[in-house]
Amino acid sequence: MKNRFIKIALFTALAGSACLAQTQQPAIIEDFKPSTLNQPGQEYPMVNSQRYARFKIVAPAADSVRVSLGLGGRGGTKLSKAEDGTWMGTTEGPMDEGFHYYNVRIDGGKFNDPGTLNYYGSVRWESGIEIPAHDQDFYALKNVPHGHVQQVLFPSPSTNTSRRAFVYTPPGYEKDKKTKYPVLYLQHGWGEDETAWSNQGRANLIMDNMIAEGKIKPFIIVMTYGMTNDVKPGGIRNFKIEPFQTVLINELIPYVDANFRTIVNKDSRAMAGLSMGGMETKTITLNNPDVFSYYGLLSGGIYASADIKDKSKVKLIFLSCGSKERPDGVRKAAEELKNAGFNAVSYVSEGTAHEFQTWRRSLYQLAPLLFKK
Amino acid sequence: MKNRFIKIALFTALAGSACLAQTQQPAIIEDFKPSTLNQPGQEYPMVNSQRYARFKIVAPAADSVRVSLGLGGRGGTKLSKAEDGTWMGTTEGPMDEGFHYYNVRIDGGKFNDPGTLNYYGSVRWESGIEIPAHDQDFYALKNVPHGHVQQVLFPSPSTNTSRRAFVYTPPGYEKDKKTKYPVLYLQHGWGEDETAWSNQGRANLIMDNMIAEGKIKPFIIVMTYGMTNDVKPGGIRNFKIEPFQTVLINELIPYVDANFRTIVNKDSRAMAGLSMGGMETKTITLNNPDVFSYYGLLSGGIYASADIKDKSKVKLIFLSCGSKERPDGVRKAAEELKNAGFNAVSYVSEGTAHEFQTWRRSLYQLAPLLFKK
Repeated sequence: MKNRFIKIALFTALAGSACLAQTQQPAIIEDFKPSTLNQPGQEYPMVNSQRYARFKIVAPAADSVRVSLGLGGRGGTKLSKAEDGTWMGTTEGPMDEGFHYYNVRIDGGKFNDPGTLNYYGSVRWESGIEIPAHDQDFYALKNVPHGHVQQVLFPSPSTNTSRRAFVYTPPGYEKDKKTKYPVLYLQHGWGEDETAWSNQGRANLIMDNMIAEGKIKPFIIVMTYGMTNDVKPGGIRNFKIEPFQTVLINELIPYVDANFRTIVNKDSRAMAGLSMGGMETKTITLNNPDVFSYYGLLSGGIYASADIKDKSKVKLIFLSCGSKERPDGVRKAAEELKNAGFNAVSYVSEGTAHEFQTWRRSLYQLAPLLFKK
Repeated sequence: MKNRFIKIALFTALAGSACLAQTQQPAIIEDFKPSTLNQPGQEYPMVNSQRYARFKIVAPAADSVRVSLGLGGRGGTKLSKAEDGTWMGTTEGPMDEGFHYYNVRIDGGKFNDPGTLNYYGSVRWESGIEIPAHDQDFYALKNVPHGHVQQVLFPSPSTNTSRRAFVYTPPGYEKDKKTKYPVLYLQHGWGEDETAWSNQGRANLIMDNMIAEGKIKPFIIVMTYGMTNDVKPGGIRNFKIEPFQTVLINELIPYVDANFRTIVNKDSRAMAGLSMGGMETKTITLNNPDVFSYYGLLSGGIYASADIKDKSKVKLIFLSCGSKERPDGVRKAAEELKNAGFNAVSYVSEGTAHEFQTWRRSLYQLAPLLFKK
């Protein structure tokens, strides 16, 4: 039953994610188990203790079946036809720990693996697979009090529609009717949407677990669509921040402050984002120094001290990425900020690339640093 | 942008849903528009003003592509290969109004249409298409105050896990911190899960619109997984109600009453369900006469007056189905109940079968009748 509850992306265009270590491979150990993201009752895809993934697709009359997951740049994993008409294949090497998007090419068309759940990334609902990680405990579904994730439809006059956001409220939010909470506005990346952080990101479970362990003071998280996909993939340089900034600052924040028990001031407001959501965070926090006090860029660029006019308004700058991205850039930027007198923290996720395991870990590192001052 | 927000089953095994009228067909009018459930930026599937559906699947090297939607029992709609390598096809006749599940057979394998969003039905995430209905206004996304839909993970000692429910709270629930509300426990059908009523069912939008028009007094809706799929499709007769009844009565209701501002008594509690969820509703309400006062079966069987020991405990019995199901059974049962002194109401959805349009309309009819006494 557990799978049903752990339903819990990217500059993919820009990130040639190197999922596989390129070393000599050992013999494959035949201890494959269903991925925890499989649809109910589905055996495949599977993962073994070496982090190899194995796929099985039923398409008896197909000429060619290929899974996009595998050695980067080499077209993924080609499946072979078995005697019973199914197509099977195993990655050539171990996958990075954590969540990966993928899709299946069948006779030249792009489809999803019917065995697994779908996650919004690359401007489409993609198949997802979960490679067990050595540190997966921090985002596991445990027997602890759980917060709620609310789907909110908020009025947006500037875009002439009702827009969707998801709001994480911590455990006990409904019972204790007086406590007010700080708020983190948390953005997804290009190709993703407002579902990403609580589905593949497991932001709610990360929070529940940290709160249960007393590692953080509870806060609210608000996740909405950053409008990052509304430009053609090739035209991302033409992305304009203003429409989203208007939605966030003039429409969503007032809605949240009116409808949830928030502490309404800049020192109780943080903004963070991954990848293109980090670029949005940077621009919007710099444009609105009186709205947010805590800034986080997760594989989403850096701040330089020269970017920030009034140092006293910034309580924290958090910069992170995976060790397979450009960790030196993040470390150096944090160093430069610290030397300039900022409370800056860098974090590098070991052994991960421009993928969600980096961002789950980043949230886990960021959360205890928020709303401290 | 609207499509992004209107993301808004079945005894499919038992219901040979007759989606197409079997009359002489007129010429096809070429005014096809993308279905409102398409993924962002996707043109196909499309629907025209005659309610014909047209599909387009890219799979240039495939030998055969077929969509499950179409004339029941004849294998759906066969697509033909166009010169550009895409597969296209149009249903042979008009579809019933409302939401339909479907899937795509490609060279013998069952996949989803990459053009459209997925909805959980038939124990898998299926493709969905929306055929505009003459009465679609009542479940449209409008510029009215919107309630929230909360994902809740509640402790379930009896199943040794955290179980998921979705809770609809009416507009203003968060602002007005004192009002307490009655609660409707609303069940999905076989093959579906707790996502069905707020995704394909649009229960939240139906409520928002009725509340905005003053047609109903606001109430809370709780939707959880009825464990109906945990039996093999062929073994549905072996389904035992006890495990789900324990979860609902001993675990979920106490959680909801502790964590939401509910009115904690039987006269402020209703249970309704569609299809197999109706059968669950019948058994559980009869087993627990002091828990619920309002009963609703939506294409999910009937009550006979002899079933109910203490008439005074039942405030309403609502029975409904589509006109393409067995409307006489529902009408006669309501008549029999009325003659026996019950407050019984029947409703027949015109021109619909064992599908979600019947149940959207049923909820729209049921809601104003609840919590009146």
